[in-house]
Amino acid sequence: MNAPADLLLLPRWVVPVEAEGALTDHAVAVRDGRILDVLPADAARARYAAAQTVTLPGHALIPGLVNLHGHAAMSLLRGFADDLPLMSWLRDRIWPAEKQHVSEAFVFDGTLLAAAEMLSGGITACNDMYFHPQAAGEAFLQAGMRATLGMIVLEFPSAYAADADDYLTKGLAVRDELKEEPLLSFAFAPHAPYTIGDATFTRINTLAEQLGLPIHTHVHETAGEIQDSLAQHGVRPLERLARLGLLGPNFIGVHAVHVNEAEIESLAAHGCHVAHCPASNLKLASGLAPIADLVRAGVNVGLGTDGAASNNRLDLFAEMRLAALLAKGISGDAAALPAAAALRMATLDAARALNLDDHIGSIAPGKRADLVAVDLRPLAAQPLFDPVSHLVYVAGREHVTHVWVDGQLKLNERRLVHLDIDDLTARAAYWRGKLST
Amino acid sequence: MNAPADLLLLPRWVVPVEAEGALTDHAVAVRDGRILDVLPADAARARYAAAQTVTLPGHALIPGLVNLHGHAAMSLLRGFADDLPLMSWLRDRIWPAEKQHVSEAFVFDGTLLAAAEMLSGGITACNDMYFHPQAAGEAFLQAGMRATLGMIVLEFPSAYAADADDYLTKGLAVRDELKEEPLLSFAFAPHAPYTIGDATFTRINTLAEQLGLPIHTHVHETAGEIQDSLAQHGVRPLERLARLGLLGPNFIGVHAVHVNEAEIESLAAHGCHVAHCPASNLKLASGLAPIADLVRAGVNVGLGTDGAASNNRLDLFAEMRLAALLAKGISGDAAALPAAAALRMATLDAARALNLDDHIGSIAPGKRADLVAVDLRPLAAQPLFDPVSHLVYVAGREHVTHVWVDGQLKLNERRLVHLDIDDLTARAAYWRGKLST
Repeated sequence: MNAPADLLLLPRWVVPVEAEGALTDHAVAVRDGRILDVLPADAARARYAAAQTVTLPGHALIPGLVNLHGHAAMSLLRGFADDLPLMSWLRDRIWPAEKQHVSEAFVFDGTLLAAAEMLSGGITACNDMYFHPQAAGEAFLQAGMRATLGMIVLEFPSAYAADADDYLTKGLAVRDELKEEPLLSFAFAPHAPYTIGDATFTRINTLAEQLGLPIHTHVHETAGEIQDSLAQHGVRPLERLARLGLLGPNFIGVHAVHVNEAEIESLAAHGCHVAHCPASNLKLASGLAPIADLVRAGVNVGLGTDGAASNNRLDLFAEMRLAALLAKGISGDAAALPAAAALRMATLDAARALNLDDHIGSIAPGKRADLVAVDLRPLAAQPLFDPVSHLVYVAGREHVTHVWVDGQLKLNERRLVHLDIDDLTARAAYWRGKLST
Repeated sequence: MNAPADLLLLPRWVVPVEAEGALTDHAVAVRDGRILDVLPADAARARYAAAQTVTLPGHALIPGLVNLHGHAAMSLLRGFADDLPLMSWLRDRIWPAEKQHVSEAFVFDGTLLAAAEMLSGGITACNDMYFHPQAAGEAFLQAGMRATLGMIVLEFPSAYAADADDYLTKGLAVRDELKEEPLLSFAFAPHAPYTIGDATFTRINTLAEQLGLPIHTHVHETAGEIQDSLAQHGVRPLERLARLGLLGPNFIGVHAVHVNEAEIESLAAHGCHVAHCPASNLKLASGLAPIADLVRAGVNVGLGTDGAASNNRLDLFAEMRLAALLAKGISGDAAALPAAAALRMATLDAARALNLDDHIGSIAPGKRADLVAVDLRPLAAQPLFDPVSHLVYVAGREHVTHVWVDGQLKLNERRLVHLDIDDLTARAAYWRGKLST
């Protein structure tokens, strides 16, 4: 009786994701940043003396969304180059801009801007891959957002590092410095099979096993990279990674657009995870990932936004809807990837890929209190037959009203609590000016 | 000097659509419901004495969006049945619900709800096809939204009409009654080749030519209907329509998902229009329309939302983005359907299909003042390099702040001016209750 709680949330619906469907007349109690209890609202009022009670009369309370693949700092390149063929986009626009402008300051400002956008849209955690992960980590900590920082590795030099050894050394140093931060975790992030040699992959694999960390890499995004691998290595990239021993439950393959039946079976058999980025795959004309087939084979698939240069929204509501629609259109089966499955991909399945599903990804006692309230009262969401359907097919990130990370309020009635919008707008304008010259 | 105007709009950008790109430091003057002038802001301030001046300091002013295909009243079936195979969706859920519940009251309430949603999202005109077009027309007039009412025709009976003759008689009577309404226009709306016989098509074609009206019909939405036509008529549906003389500049084919090269050529040669509904085509697993090929062949393509039972948003911002992304993903060409082309499909090209492009679809002197302001200041739209790119790839309908139809303000700072939200919410809840029993 009168057990203490920091926060008692009384939404119209609780959508735990752990089991399918929505609970009505339920409450979520939070204490010390954790979900303490999920129970009927009447019982919650009787049992808990909460420091704060938030009534959410027309809202669905969902787990914070988990963005399984992004390059947060590229928010500063949002709309910088659109509607160009992929190679022209990369070689003529993105790479030269990155070479000239990417610095710790660029990464800090861009990551902070991205974190503000993601938090406003209900994304409470992301898996990031970019240069200067230390600066990204500082920005995520300032925003109070959960992040898995990618220790990025390339074989070629950049303003950040000289060679694969240097990238790895720098990445591991960032981890040593920040690994006690409760909101941060780490992954190895070798960029892609076409930018990483066998020796580096082998070294990363050994380190990942020793440290118990995920490996996060782009794979089979385009048809071209597969042809190049066949020419250079005699095998397709996934086969090469399999031979090097990379495939396993700590492997997150990003995109997996061009995967044949044997590769789908191999990903499933090895317990690999796929980060599906449907908007980016379409915008860069990479192709159509066979998500219904991957899911049917048992591959764990999470959703990612990719970077804002190829999307151009860091918006997992848009990705959920697009993933659910595309899976049907491609497979020819209108029952493919139903709403509940798309929501799980954007939460629990993504958390599982990051090996964080003991801590986040669903609303369950003991998990960290990463929670999002979605207001389903607007006219465009009427009538409402099923809140889970509406979360995927009707709602947008604009319906997110409240966001908590680790029990801390980050978005209150659609306003960011800790971040200065004017300051962020000015930083974006500064970099736009630099990039436009 | 001091020429009178009702309204002077001073946005950050004017996007006329007539020519590509955006004008900065320009103003739009409105008088008697028409666009009077588009001119530099300084000159506008000197020339016009406006009854009202609206400054839109971070906004793009665009033409009102034109929804080229919808079933507005089906807003009441939003989320009523999702994630089901097409035939089960139609036969087990949608058709029985329609049979039991569709009435004049249902159509009026549903159309008013849809009009409120569309206006809030920057859609100022739509091409509608549903039972009881009289009730739909009254709802559009109450909302103050522009609409082309489809005189729906089926061969089989419904609560609305008994047979094709009865549908046509009733449709033409609605037109006789409402044809002087400046916001309304009319089209023949034979449902689809698989629900309309040759004699009825021929009669509609004659009437359409006599009255100078468009013919609006579903065509080649699914692979199945093509197989059925081959079995029943010995030809594919478009070939059958061509033989009946239906194909021409007044023909709007909705969906056109399954069209081969010869059919694309035929649509182009006949000057036909296509209403592309990408979200609906995906959700019902109809397939992927070859929009890049249709456009390349010279077919005029506009965008439509379809009904809220198969979408579930009446949101042309979402359709613009999806159309632009899908065209790239399907064609393998990241330069396919650039942002400016997607915006034109949702405005001027749709107006052209409806033979309304002399009146609406772009911001040009003499056209009706159907205008939409989109606020591009939110953090998620920073930085901004090109407002046209942001309108398609970044903005959502939530960024629409002001909407004028025929020079009348319909949405002011995101609030509907003439419609009662509580009343509409109650109507939606009433029908949800009826449909759920």
